Amino acid sequence: MPLYMDIHRKVDGATAEAVADAHMKDLEVQSRYGVNYKKYWIEESSGTIFCLVEAPNKEAAERVHRIAHGLTADEIFEVTENS
Amino acid sequence: MPLYMDIHRKVDGATAEAVADAHMKDLEVQSRYGVNYKKYWIEESSGTIFCLVEAPNKEAAERVHRIAHGLTADEIFEVTENS
Repeated sequence: MPLYMDIHRKVDGATAEAVADAHMKDLEVQSRYGVNYKKYWIEESSGTIFCLVEAPNKEAAERVHRIAHGLTADEIFEVTENS
Repeated sequence: MPLYMDIHRKVDGATAEAVADAHMKDLEVQSRYGVNYKKYWIEESSGTIFCLVEAPNKEAAERVHRIAHGLTADEIFEVTENS
């Protein structure tokens, strides 16, 4: 399944707790759309959030964010992961 | 140790092979600076690369990229990881 990295910028109130709550909402909704939000990274000071997500396509990943909590990303990239 | 996510944009020739080669150079250099480049994600079509790195500070993470291959990031964020 394709893998995506999205970026949310200047999110108001992007505390660890608030983002964890939004992420839980993604997890509740995602299976309906074949989506798997795997990990996320937060820089609280700038309100920046990166989400790593498996999804059938970009639109499905975005749809989950929109339905779950309404905070859609500013950018989304289809990526391959390496280490 | 602090964790950082960096973004490189519009990298010319950002094929999986070329980026793997650059990453190997990071790994060869990093221990001198107490840095650990953990993972990276590539979108070849746009030349976008995300690197996840543990480092004592941003400057040390950047220094490794600069010395190893000269491709420094456009942005770097200090992040917490969650899943």
